[in-house]
Amino acid sequence: MTARIREFLRTRREDGPCMVLDLDVVRDNYNAFARALPDTRVFYAVKANPSPEVLHLLATLGSCFDTASVAEIEMALAAGATADRISFGNTIKKERDVARAYALGIRLFAVDCLAEVEKIARAAPGSKVFCRILCDGAGAEWPLSRKFGCVPEMAADVLEHAHRNGLEAYGVSFHVGSQQRNTEAWDQALASSAAIFRECAERGITLSMVNLGGGFPTKYLKEVPAVERYGDSIFQALSKHFGNRLPETIIEPGRGMVGNAGLIEAEVVLISKKSEDDDVRWVYLDIGKFGGLAETMDESIRYPIRTRHDGDEMTPCVLAGPTCDSADVMYEKEPYPLPVSLSIGDKVLIEGAGAYTTTYSAVAFNGFPPLRSYVI
Amino acid sequence: MTARIREFLRTRREDGPCMVLDLDVVRDNYNAFARALPDTRVFYAVKANPSPEVLHLLATLGSCFDTASVAEIEMALAAGATADRISFGNTIKKERDVARAYALGIRLFAVDCLAEVEKIARAAPGSKVFCRILCDGAGAEWPLSRKFGCVPEMAADVLEHAHRNGLEAYGVSFHVGSQQRNTEAWDQALASSAAIFRECAERGITLSMVNLGGGFPTKYLKEVPAVERYGDSIFQALSKHFGNRLPETIIEPGRGMVGNAGLIEAEVVLISKKSEDDDVRWVYLDIGKFGGLAETMDESIRYPIRTRHDGDEMTPCVLAGPTCDSADVMYEKEPYPLPVSLSIGDKVLIEGAGAYTTTYSAVAFNGFPPLRSYVI
Repeated sequence: MTARIREFLRTRREDGPCMVLDLDVVRDNYNAFARALPDTRVFYAVKANPSPEVLHLLATLGSCFDTASVAEIEMALAAGATADRISFGNTIKKERDVARAYALGIRLFAVDCLAEVEKIARAAPGSKVFCRILCDGAGAEWPLSRKFGCVPEMAADVLEHAHRNGLEAYGVSFHVGSQQRNTEAWDQALASSAAIFRECAERGITLSMVNLGGGFPTKYLKEVPAVERYGDSIFQALSKHFGNRLPETIIEPGRGMVGNAGLIEAEVVLISKKSEDDDVRWVYLDIGKFGGLAETMDESIRYPIRTRHDGDEMTPCVLAGPTCDSADVMYEKEPYPLPVSLSIGDKVLIEGAGAYTTTYSAVAFNGFPPLRSYVI
Repeated sequence: MTARIREFLRTRREDGPCMVLDLDVVRDNYNAFARALPDTRVFYAVKANPSPEVLHLLATLGSCFDTASVAEIEMALAAGATADRISFGNTIKKERDVARAYALGIRLFAVDCLAEVEKIARAAPGSKVFCRILCDGAGAEWPLSRKFGCVPEMAADVLEHAHRNGLEAYGVSFHVGSQQRNTEAWDQALASSAAIFRECAERGITLSMVNLGGGFPTKYLKEVPAVERYGDSIFQALSKHFGNRLPETIIEPGRGMVGNAGLIEAEVVLISKKSEDDDVRWVYLDIGKFGGLAETMDESIRYPIRTRHDGDEMTPCVLAGPTCDSADVMYEKEPYPLPVSLSIGDKVLIEGAGAYTTTYSAVAFNGFPPLRSYVI
């Protein structure tokens, strides 16, 4: 809670839950990344929070942008980024979207298989491509699925295919898992990356870049290491695996850039018990899993929740959202302690809510338009 | 796939995934419910698909409406329903929303605890309330959580509290779990309901109504019983537990009313393997968990998927969506068989997609507006 957010909420007149984000915090975060990884370019992951004001600020500060769709590319351009500062980082793209990106000037694309390379060779000739590899994500609070990336052993074939099809085989990318609290998590993937650099060199292909992905955490309930510690650890791993021939590097922070810059103000709609002798109270807010708190899925992200009763005696609560959807329950397996004095109508502040909230609420999630509907 | 949908898709010009819904099927479904449960009023669960055309058709056919929010009440009124045909069926309501509903003429409200009764007594004096009770949901493909309802033993206290606060203690409601394929599932909850009727009668309170909820299935991959069988089974259970003093009854079909009326046309964006010797192919569509297929959560609902290659040899596939979100994977634990000849760019038809798709995609899910965002 910054002084600017407190003042904003004090004078807000509209009704209903809202997310408030302080740009000063985003500026501090950007500068911390730039200091901690001075030789690394920052590609902000637009999907984390695509507010025009955030994108504009970051463009002004010199950030580059990692985008998931043509709509996100257009947002980054509208915010003042030039096309050479934008990566089309989604490994899953329609060929006509690759062509639209190319027409907008984009020349840097992610791939993880031969078929995607062929689309880019046809629709964005001569562009740079990097190959995403799988990474186990150990230590992450939100480990990634196997959706993106190929096994490291396949990457040289993908990159050679790009090279043979007139593209620039530019490098390797990976993601160590979101909200990664282990600063050593990059080591194994950098070992794999260096091996791919060597394998490609043997095939006469010189790679240039390692995309270190995201994973930089924001503080929720548990403490997280400072960004400097990530910088030190990543630099050591790079030196260990690449020696004195360090590759060009980029990072793609999303959560780490905007998470702690925003909070959600919500309201307690109902407090009840399911039976007279229930130990646990049910607390229903006017925001839930489908209104912005999607990352409570499987109770993965536990947000800090502040109330005006903090300091009073606490009691375990199931926390749920306002919809008529039975799945709209945030914390139940591990109940959330809240003050016994919390009452219907009280406001609560959900901290660390600057990333992956508004986008999941969800108009144009990831920049994809909502499902169109025809009734005939 | 109806002839009208086929013709619509044949002449459609726009790009991108879409849901198409045939009103003729909705009309048939409404008539089937009316025939199968002739003494029961139908309250369509607006959240399943709040398209104005669907609401208007159902209002014309004589349906009533179960709503989750003031926005849904306004939609039902706009579609031509009178206020006496609308229930505010969400047990979680802000008191000022109860007052708004009351001002719009709504006089029927769901409750499951004393605090909610008190809100309604203050903001909607004299209204009818029914108490939601918990129900185990055995046999349902999408069993409900404990979010809504109290234990049956608490219901008489809640209803007596309503009575003492000037409300009409009107009845009991429960939900046997969504996509309930066991036609006997209503029996246990009706036994509990009858016990609550007796307990209230002993306290001098005459209840009138049992809300049998939803749960009526739509056909996905597995066969489901015809609605007539649900009607027979429910009538038998009512007679067994209430004898010849049958209560007034209502049902709240959502999925059963519109599920099979709609399908989604989507496109294959990418097909790949994670390693050279992978047994499973990854098939990425231009629609996923955040674009309308939210009910694939935990792989609960398995939609029938048709392609122009049906009949060819099949191979197991992981099915995923187009976003840069690692959780946007529909079927992985149990891979989905799709034709080996399926290619990038092919269209696929996802059947049974008339319910819980457009609403989850998700502009105004459940009628709640998307999270507002301020950047200061």
